[in-house]
Amino acid sequence: MEKLSMWWENLVASSRILRFADINLRGIGQVMFQNNPLSGALFLAAVAWGSYVAGVPQVALAGLIAVVVATLTAQWLHVDQASLNSGLYGYNAFLVGLALATFLAPGALLWGYVVLGAAVSVVAMLGIANVVKSWGLTSFTFPFVLTTWLLLLASYGFAGLLGTALPTGRIVAAFQPSEATPFKMADLVQGVLHSISQVFLKGDGWAALLLLAGLAVSSLAAAAFALGGAILAVATAHVLGAESELITGGLLGFSPVLTAIALGTVFYRPGWRVVAYTALGTIFTVIAQSALNVALTPLAIPALTMPFVLVSWLFLLPRQGFEPAPILRERTGEAD
Amino acid sequence: MEKLSMWWENLVASSRILRFADINLRGIGQVMFQNNPLSGALFLAAVAWGSYVAGVPQVALAGLIAVVVATLTAQWLHVDQASLNSGLYGYNAFLVGLALATFLAPGALLWGYVVLGAAVSVVAMLGIANVVKSWGLTSFTFPFVLTTWLLLLASYGFAGLLGTALPTGRIVAAFQPSEATPFKMADLVQGVLHSISQVFLKGDGWAALLLLAGLAVSSLAAAAFALGGAILAVATAHVLGAESELITGGLLGFSPVLTAIALGTVFYRPGWRVVAYTALGTIFTVIAQSALNVALTPLAIPALTMPFVLVSWLFLLPRQGFEPAPILRERTGEAD
Amino acid sequence: MEKLSMWWENLVASSRILRFADINLRGIGQVMFQNNPLSGALFLAAVAWGSYVAGVPQVALAGLIAVVVATLTAQWLHVDQASLNSGLYGYNAFLVGLALATFLAPGALLWGYVVLGAAVSVVAMLGIANVVKSWGLTSFTFPFVLTTWLLLLASYGFAGLLGTALPTGRIVAAFQPSEATPFKMADLVQGVLHSISQVFLKGDGWAALLLLAGLAVSSLAAAAFALGGAILAVATAHVLGAESELITGGLLGFSPVLTAIALGTVFYRPGWRVVAYTALGTIFTVIAQSALNVALTPLAIPALTMPFVLVSWLFLLPRQGFEPAPILRERTGEAD
Repeated sequence: MEKLSMWWENLVASSRILRFADINLRGIGQVMFQNNPLSGALFLAAVAWGSYVAGVPQVALAGLIAVVVATLTAQWLHVDQASLNSGLYGYNAFLVGLALATFLAPGALLWGYVVLGAAVSVVAMLGIANVVKSWGLTSFTFPFVLTTWLLLLASYGFAGLLGTALPTGRIVAAFQPSEATPFKMADLVQGVLHSISQVFLKGDGWAALLLLAGLAVSSLAAAAFALGGAILAVATAHVLGAESELITGGLLGFSPVLTAIALGTVFYRPGWRVVAYTALGTIFTVIAQSALNVALTPLAIPALTMPFVLVSWLFLLPRQGFEPAPILRERTGEAD
Repeated sequence: MEKLSMWWENLVASSRILRFADINLRGIGQVMFQNNPLSGALFLAAVAWGSYVAGVPQVALAGLIAVVVATLTAQWLHVDQASLNSGLYGYNAFLVGLALATFLAPGALLWGYVVLGAAVSVVAMLGIANVVKSWGLTSFTFPFVLTTWLLLLASYGFAGLLGTALPTGRIVAAFQPSEATPFKMADLVQGVLHSISQVFLKGDGWAALLLLAGLAVSSLAAAAFALGGAILAVATAHVLGAESELITGGLLGFSPVLTAIALGTVFYRPGWRVVAYTALGTIFTVIAQSALNVALTPLAIPALTMPFVLVSWLFLLPRQGFEPAPILRERTGEAD
Repeated sequence: MEKLSMWWENLVASSRILRFADINLRGIGQVMFQNNPLSGALFLAAVAWGSYVAGVPQVALAGLIAVVVATLTAQWLHVDQASLNSGLYGYNAFLVGLALATFLAPGALLWGYVVLGAAVSVVAMLGIANVVKSWGLTSFTFPFVLTTWLLLLASYGFAGLLGTALPTGRIVAAFQPSEATPFKMADLVQGVLHSISQVFLKGDGWAALLLLAGLAVSSLAAAAFALGGAILAVATAHVLGAESELITGGLLGFSPVLTAIALGTVFYRPGWRVVAYTALGTIFTVIAQSALNVALTPLAIPALTMPFVLVSWLFLLPRQGFEPAPILRERTGEAD
């Protein structure tokens, strides 16, 4: 793996086109915090496969266009070269592209929306990073969430953009379980896999395996925390009595998966105390996911990865408070 | 009082069990900014009495369990010892416990929710304190509000947790006064007392008197501002034509009571200009309380003490702007 | 113009009454970033005219009372004299007065509300400025938005204040275009002019021309960006298929007009790159306007100028990121 990486680095240094491809692949990899073009390629394959089997090839295309537009925008704005090269200005746009093409109907204006959203996601990334670095935080996917929420909300006021896959606005009402669902192992496995693939807005087992492979080539710990986070999230949701369809669809698990990777592998040094702290954060992300699903019910927009952003910020903010203790230390320079 | 306090301090220094009890009592006292175990004991008595007469003894128990869990969590996280000993990691959890047991039906999962909420409230306290100290602010009860809002919202999506006492989701509509209610002195007195006891989610006159006693043993000024704030809030709500039931139930007054104590006694040195500034803040907290009641109508969750947090932050932020003037100075090191 | 300004400055220096008038006129001018009493006078004339022809003279009066109350409050709070003299504590209150009198029915309590809102807007201005200056930002009209939102939301809970002109609470639903409206030049012109006058909550062509004149006497660039921003906003809204009535009423254009002035003339040095960046921000403000209109539908309050505040903050935050590039520099000391 080390050799492969060296060979690729040399190749990239010699060609402007390969450099551009490398930046965009790393951008896709950074959705799950991996500054690694091979991870990005495997993630892209997962998204392409998931879009193909779901009959919505335009979703993968929109993601690809968005990440390219974002890279061009970032270059135009003279952003910091090192951050650009490690893909930090691409991952939000990739998700913006996927989300817009998932929730809105195809059409000419959708592509205009994708280009606009991708460009604005770079501005949002620069701006939000400036704010949250005051407390040692990174932007996570908040630029994606903010940009996409505004674009999706706005679409309700535009005849040119139809939100065919958006939820319907409803009044908040107490949840009624549709049926007594006995616990089945197949459902658990499906829930866990879809929790991973829904990070990229896909409900597909093979896509999940490709994503785990993409994590593993870059960091075995990341793959382990992703899988562990998904299992813990599914178990928590089941114990609390969440709707079976949400659990098996992975819709309560994708934010906890990101929280588990973020708290467990990227920012803190592993150890049993960090595992316990990460587990608490992962469980609370399930709460936050359900809470935001409810809170956004009257607005008829999806929660996206906001539960992950909210809980991970909350759980990383006390970092300074831990500093006297030897176990929680930042591994700097490793991801966004 | 001075002697009693000395005797207790010596006692506490000699026993780990008494130290632990002292921390938890101070935690309860900090709900109303009193770093004083006797205040905490009187507040706890008020809550126990209020829960008993309302037929919900589990509410006081949930508060007690939550503050103990929070203290243990804070110790596990190696927080700053001085802050821990003055109860700053307990008051949010105490309120989380009271609120969850007030709004959700009893059951096994409720106690799991209380433990989870108490632990997360400590993380939230550490994180939020880190953010707002950038502008010389303290967290107030925002960690309680954030944690409880997420847990209550999430409960709508979980069959295992029923929000039997939560409001119903509704569309915002113009308020229609149910009847012309003539002004009655008895209602005024009840409204004032319940405004004080609702700080701890109780509508009970005797509980209010115990709370005032708990304030008075620690700070006569705090008791005076609490009472004055409650009277001003009830009068303001009456003049504006708020619903009588909300006024007499103390539901428009508990946030203004906290604002009055916070602006009047804890952070600024008294004086007539501070009294005028505090009065403006207290009146505006009544507006904020009504506003948040309306804003949260579609989400079917209570405003909790968010109006107090919002207005007190807003009115404390300009502090720097006052510094050239001789009258508004911070009394540091006195409360959270 | 230079001579006129000198003559006025000398006059003002010699009289406390003229100084007070000067401060209040500059406060009105700062609504569109102009620290210029003549701009303020022309803006006031535009509002007076717009209120007169709409049959709501109390709106202009409320604005005038509010700006005077704010100036007195700011003096009482010992704010920085230079900021006070340049009108920075008046513009939010002027808008608070206009908005309250526009959306609420006349009556004794309305005037109490105007005075309260004006006083609180000064506290909010001091507090919010303290927060956002951490990232080199100014408050823009956020103190106005926050104060007015709370006062309007609260009015739903008060029988003494009727929100006769407030929107109705509704569930978010997909937009249905009422009719196929062919593009008409007259509608475009009206939409552009009303986009400018709606900055002051008026839909009136003559008022718009007075406002453009007020901008031009202080800064030709500001007038040009205001006009260009309005045209771009109307064109964007039309292409996206927004409701014709919203476009011709200027209700999707007033926030973009402010964004165009803020990004184009006040904070960055002009140049084609800045024009392109400003155009992106202006287009995205149309999105944000539509998004906030939708998001506030269940709460039944207007978006006010929040879309402008949100997008301008977002687009100004990356400033530091541009610093290596020669084109985007702050012109300090020029406006709020």
